[in-house]
Amino acid sequence: MNAIEELHRKAKELTNLNSIMALLQWDQEVMMPSGGAAGRAEQFSVLSTIVHQKITAPGLGKILQELSGKPEELSSADLSLIRVLKREYDKNTKLPEKFIADFSRLTSEALPVWVEARKKNNFEIFLPLLHKIIRMSRQKADYLGYVDHPYDALLDLYEEGLTTNDLDVLFGNLKAELSQLLQQKISQQKPVPEKLKDMAPMLLKDQVHFSERLLSEIGYDFNRGRQDISAHPFTTSLGHNDRRVTNRFRPDSLEFIFSALHEGGHGLYEQNIAEEYAETPLDEGVSLGIHESQSRLWENIIGRNHLFWEKQYPLLQEILPDQFANILLNDFVSHINRVDPGMIRVEADEVSYNLHVLIRFELEKGLLEGAIGVTDLPAIWNEKYKHYLNVAVDSDANGVLQDIHWAHGSFGYFPTYTIGNLAAAQIWRTYCLFDSDYRQTLLQGNLEKIRNWLTEKIYRHGAFYPPAELLHKVCSEPLNSKYFIEYLKNKPEFSL
Amino acid sequence: MNAIEELHRKAKELTNLNSIMALLQWDQEVMMPSGGAAGRAEQFSVLSTIVHQKITAPGLGKILQELSGKPEELSSADLSLIRVLKREYDKNTKLPEKFIADFSRLTSEALPVWVEARKKNNFEIFLPLLHKIIRMSRQKADYLGYVDHPYDALLDLYEEGLTTNDLDVLFGNLKAELSQLLQQKISQQKPVPEKLKDMAPMLLKDQVHFSERLLSEIGYDFNRGRQDISAHPFTTSLGHNDRRVTNRFRPDSLEFIFSALHEGGHGLYEQNIAEEYAETPLDEGVSLGIHESQSRLWENIIGRNHLFWEKQYPLLQEILPDQFANILLNDFVSHINRVDPGMIRVEADEVSYNLHVLIRFELEKGLLEGAIGVTDLPAIWNEKYKHYLNVAVDSDANGVLQDIHWAHGSFGYFPTYTIGNLAAAQIWRTYCLFDSDYRQTLLQGNLEKIRNWLTEKIYRHGAFYPPAELLHKVCSEPLNSKYFIEYLKNKPEFSL
Repeated sequence: MNAIEELHRKAKELTNLNSIMALLQWDQEVMMPSGGAAGRAEQFSVLSTIVHQKITAPGLGKILQELSGKPEELSSADLSLIRVLKREYDKNTKLPEKFIADFSRLTSEALPVWVEARKKNNFEIFLPLLHKIIRMSRQKADYLGYVDHPYDALLDLYEEGLTTNDLDVLFGNLKAELSQLLQQKISQQKPVPEKLKDMAPMLLKDQVHFSERLLSEIGYDFNRGRQDISAHPFTTSLGHNDRRVTNRFRPDSLEFIFSALHEGGHGLYEQNIAEEYAETPLDEGVSLGIHESQSRLWENIIGRNHLFWEKQYPLLQEILPDQFANILLNDFVSHINRVDPGMIRVEADEVSYNLHVLIRFELEKGLLEGAIGVTDLPAIWNEKYKHYLNVAVDSDANGVLQDIHWAHGSFGYFPTYTIGNLAAAQIWRTYCLFDSDYRQTLLQGNLEKIRNWLTEKIYRHGAFYPPAELLHKVCSEPLNSKYFIEYLKNKPEFSL
Repeated sequence: MNAIEELHRKAKELTNLNSIMALLQWDQEVMMPSGGAAGRAEQFSVLSTIVHQKITAPGLGKILQELSGKPEELSSADLSLIRVLKREYDKNTKLPEKFIADFSRLTSEALPVWVEARKKNNFEIFLPLLHKIIRMSRQKADYLGYVDHPYDALLDLYEEGLTTNDLDVLFGNLKAELSQLLQQKISQQKPVPEKLKDMAPMLLKDQVHFSERLLSEIGYDFNRGRQDISAHPFTTSLGHNDRRVTNRFRPDSLEFIFSALHEGGHGLYEQNIAEEYAETPLDEGVSLGIHESQSRLWENIIGRNHLFWEKQYPLLQEILPDQFANILLNDFVSHINRVDPGMIRVEADEVSYNLHVLIRFELEKGLLEGAIGVTDLPAIWNEKYKHYLNVAVDSDANGVLQDIHWAHGSFGYFPTYTIGNLAAAQIWRTYCLFDSDYRQTLLQGNLEKIRNWLTEKIYRHGAFYPPAELLHKVCSEPLNSKYFIEYLKNKPEFSL
């Protein structure tokens, strides 16, 4: 077997093992009985050790080095495969096997503890594990290496090439604009209609039904996926033709609609990757930021647009008549675009959302630097919410314990949400240049046209291009905050 | 690390990998969208190759040999662990890798062909593949080795130590008694009440509700398990505290009640294995026969007993009033104990069931010996059904093609069903000697008392004792058919 065949064989084996890891994770969050937690942690540990051994095997390093030496003999797909595998190889060879197993066990243990802490509104329960997770994350950054800031090492895990310095610039611009914009949008709003304030509780089965119809409407394929219930909605890939989304349903919250569109956006990305990349590491979204640009594009830019709801609102009224039959479309659209800064990131409006991320960015940076101590975290959290959003946090459950990410050990993940918001606005603006009739496209519900353009430009490529290169190819300029601010400033739904 | 520590490490790794394999299987049959099938096959292939490599690694063989040489230095649990691992190691190393791959490919090919043959009621389609499977099963027996009969090698895969000679004796006794008993029980029966013949369709949610209540009633722990829906009910272990059952629900069939009790019996066994065996190969039921003794004990001996239903029937009437409110308890119990020989094994009553197994046993033995040719199989099948059950088989789909086992290549599996039935009766009789008030125990629904005894005697030991030794410890005599025949002869529910 020659070197490139051997690389393909190894890539296929690794991709399949990663799909199995994704199943362990999906099952843990969606299906597993509570008693299974400790056993599942061991299963993760055993399998991640095997994956680690395979990705760090000297044989793989040798092949990657050998092939890197003769790029002229390789196809562009093979060169991308080598780039992606080399990143994985480097990341993993830098982390000792024992460290990976320990960290994996720690975060599996932390998950149910975080759930309990949030349920009981008791940060103390989670504190010792969070402390360990932060210490190990710092250690992880040291193992991975960095030039300017330990945080750079972690950011790069989720968004290839992203640095703390990039984020200081992007958040610097956003900070200057958003607080001002927030005040302005709030002052322009009309009050919420009484009928919407006092909505009848929705039945789970109706919520599930509408969210499934909505997913089908945007083109999510249920033959190659499914929607289930979990504490925190997510999307995962269990194989090229098995891309699952989850949602959560509360009788009094419209959140499920936007979670369906959000996870549906992630799902569309993955379901439309080219078949030729199946069972290779190119068979996934290129980065969390680009991934998030697609979830936010479908959730916010399309999913909160009044033209989109012209087509979809009658269906919502049909499935949930007790709640919406007497609500005017305009009132509904105004309501779902309400600017109303609150405690919870996932419920945040489009204007305040990135301020939630900014807070987490500043905290993660401080925790990693050691400038912020874990015990002080709830107090500093609440202080920053007061400062940036003028919001009083009423409990740790609604404050520092609201997100799953730290229990997962995913430091460096949050900023990709803002990357996603900014990129979504840039990509949408490019789409509107391509489809000057985009208002008509939305009004008619011709979502296939949008999905096809996105597939052509983004989805089908999987991880073929590095994220910054892909975005530049689509938009002809680098990531920036200009189009996002413009989008917010001009959005008519804020003052319907 | 010394040899025993190294063995524990390897045993833990293998057990966790097997739990992961079980999750892949469970998800495939319960959750996976149809598009995921091809990808899942690749995941199985990748993971089973890794498991095979680990179980056949020369290092494991060396350690097992080294430790076998000094039994006096080892704990009894370690000696059992070595016995179980040695069996796995031998089974896997005796079969050449190429043979395993070829056989696996053959049965993968055979499965859809069997499905098609059954659907089209055309044995000829399946014949060439069945012929190959029999030839390779004979070859498998030769690789595995045997003293008296090639079939012994295959039987031992499912029931450690079971021989063709044992089965000749057991089935010899059964044969003499069962045909006669069958005629007698049929002649004593009253006709089925009209109301039961014409039952209103049951709603899925009511069936699920009742089966979950029933599972809880017998002590199945939903914190360490769950019940889902699959095409064929099964029980599987995804970890020491994650033992799941499945069921199927048809609006017009009571099968779901007995599937719940059957799979619940398997589940109780596994949920009550001692904590100390977690993440070792001892953390499972010791053999298919002993496992089946527990599913059949709860499904039949307890689950079709009128004393059991004295307590449970009001609940059934409460949850499914349209179907049962007007049916007398006695009529219901008589109905679920109806003796009615038919063509299909999985629908058979307690008296005829083992005659179905006997037929398969005689055929498998004859096919392996070469005394029966594959082309004659349908004719001999139908002849035996006429002879033993007085049943005219109307088609090969309802005859020789009804079971999946041969397409799976599982020759030697069927007899464990009868082992289970016989052992269940022996174990129950032993329980009744311990609890002379067992009628009162059942009447009061004090199932905890029964479960605790079974846990003490059987469940907690997992695979610690070989099956024959375990049964002898419980019943103070070897496996025999006497108590099963006695049980059938004296069972009052047959002539209510």
